[in-house]
Amino acid sequence: MELAMSKDDLGRFLQTEFPQVAQEMVVDEVSAQGLVLRLRVSAAHLRPGGTVSGPAMFGLADVALYLCLLSRIGPQALAVTTNASIDFLRKPAQDRDVIASARLLKLGRVLAVGDALIYSQGLPDPVARANMTYSIPPAPR
Amino acid sequence: MELAMSKDDLGRFLQTEFPQVAQEMVVDEVSAQGLVLRLRVSAAHLRPGGTVSGPAMFGLADVALYLCLLSRIGPQALAVTTNASIDFLRKPAQDRDVIASARLLKLGRVLAVGDALIYSQGLPDPVARANMTYSIPPAPR
Amino acid sequence: MELAMSKDDLGRFLQTEFPQVAQEMVVDEVSAQGLVLRLRVSAAHLRPGGTVSGPAMFGLADVALYLCLLSRIGPQALAVTTNASIDFLRKPAQDRDVIASARLLKLGRVLAVGDALIYSQGLPDPVARANMTYSIPPAPR
Amino acid sequence: MELAMSKDDLGRFLQTEFPQVAQEMVVDEVSAQGLVLRLRVSAAHLRPGGTVSGPAMFGLADVALYLCLLSRIGPQALAVTTNASIDFLRKPAQDRDVIASARLLKLGRVLAVGDALIYSQGLPDPVARANMTYSIPPAPR
Repeated sequence: MELAMSKDDLGRFLQTEFPQVAQEMVVDEVSAQGLVLRLRVSAAHLRPGGTVSGPAMFGLADVALYLCLLSRIGPQALAVTTNASIDFLRKPAQDRDVIASARLLKLGRVLAVGDALIYSQGLPDPVARANMTYSIPPAPR
Repeated sequence: MELAMSKDDLGRFLQTEFPQVAQEMVVDEVSAQGLVLRLRVSAAHLRPGGTVSGPAMFGLADVALYLCLLSRIGPQALAVTTNASIDFLRKPAQDRDVIASARLLKLGRVLAVGDALIYSQGLPDPVARANMTYSIPPAPR
Repeated sequence: MELAMSKDDLGRFLQTEFPQVAQEMVVDEVSAQGLVLRLRVSAAHLRPGGTVSGPAMFGLADVALYLCLLSRIGPQALAVTTNASIDFLRKPAQDRDVIASARLLKLGRVLAVGDALIYSQGLPDPVARANMTYSIPPAPR
Repeated sequence: MELAMSKDDLGRFLQTEFPQVAQEMVVDEVSAQGLVLRLRVSAAHLRPGGTVSGPAMFGLADVALYLCLLSRIGPQALAVTTNASIDFLRKPAQDRDVIASARLLKLGRVLAVGDALIYSQGLPDPVARANMTYSIPPAPR
């Protein structure tokens, strides 16, 4: 499958449309197989006890799958998250970036579904697992 | 069922343990039936287009159910979110607070499960639905 | 909200379209608030240890929400389950029917979302909690 | 990781403990990477329109992950499904077996979490995606 947006296209899209997000997340990789997104972990993402917060990991998974979808359909579409499910498996390391490895399982006419594994960078066991569904609005005519 | 923590107890707990969260979330109500938590929506919670962000709603549901659990078992426990599932139903209003109404469905020895409906304050239709599971660590002996 | 199908309409619909299901499930109640569906528990639904099986409870929740949706939009639509999430909370009694109490949280143009609590008949605590999403195909023109 | 139960061990376990299930499901493969379970699709699993029913796919995913867990911890444990989430992605073929490819993402002291992709045999695109959590009872002392 050909990509509609490259790594650089996606980075520019983030900068323009979600500047707040672009400051903390970086696309490490995009291919026909999926997308890898990194959260630059800082104090703002930590919870007492030194864990990366649940909402921070949720947000990472959501942006990773959203960008994975856009890499297939292009930047014009205003896809909306309709469902998300996440399992928190292990405590993430507080001194490492968090990495989401996302893949698209279905790209339909009105729905797209994908999942992601989330890791503390450089460690072998996933800290979380997420799946998300997006509603794709009809193209304007 | 008697409550282990009152609305004021929970407010103080948030101030002490999660000062960052305490600035933006307020316990409106706690009873044997459940807990109502309000997110004071500000610019930091909004996404382009004027919607309250998904991670902000996820975080609200998570804190609401966590506090609902603590209101039953008291502040000593270090409960951890293990699973969360959320449906985004409607676009929240950007100029209204967001309210989570949470209830506990199971309080077991090692797991607690609950769900929540999320509303834009004063509007009748829910903007999101969430369910969460918490792992309760064994009491120290 | 006016109902498009009554309890009797739904029962006849099950008989005609899903005769196998109609033998084991009965609509107890339908109203603007939701729908109550009963599974007549028999040996076929039990697992070793005398529990009602997970797939049997999953099927009950699915049919309950599907009929709840049809009671609003009528029998013509071919809605398809796209997402389901279920928490098993307690062991159901093996000698009691199982009851799903379902409600619709969103009825959109392309998606409908609802949730259900499942009980062993006559017992106060839910044995399971489920939420489901349905994709509604566009009306033929 | 060494396996506590081989493919043959798991087959015998199914025959003894879940004879009803053993008639319709077969372990195709088990390894350190995961487990592949096949549902021999028959008329009993079909819905009008010739689709494999949702509960049948739910049951397949549940048994696949349950056996994957047992292949690690052995047959003694009475693990219980506590949470399941499934996305139905495409209509399964009615004349092909359905295959679940399951993997364990976490094996903790009290919880195990895994996910599975489900395929119509021989077709490349998954028909469903599922994740499940199991509660592992404490070992008797």
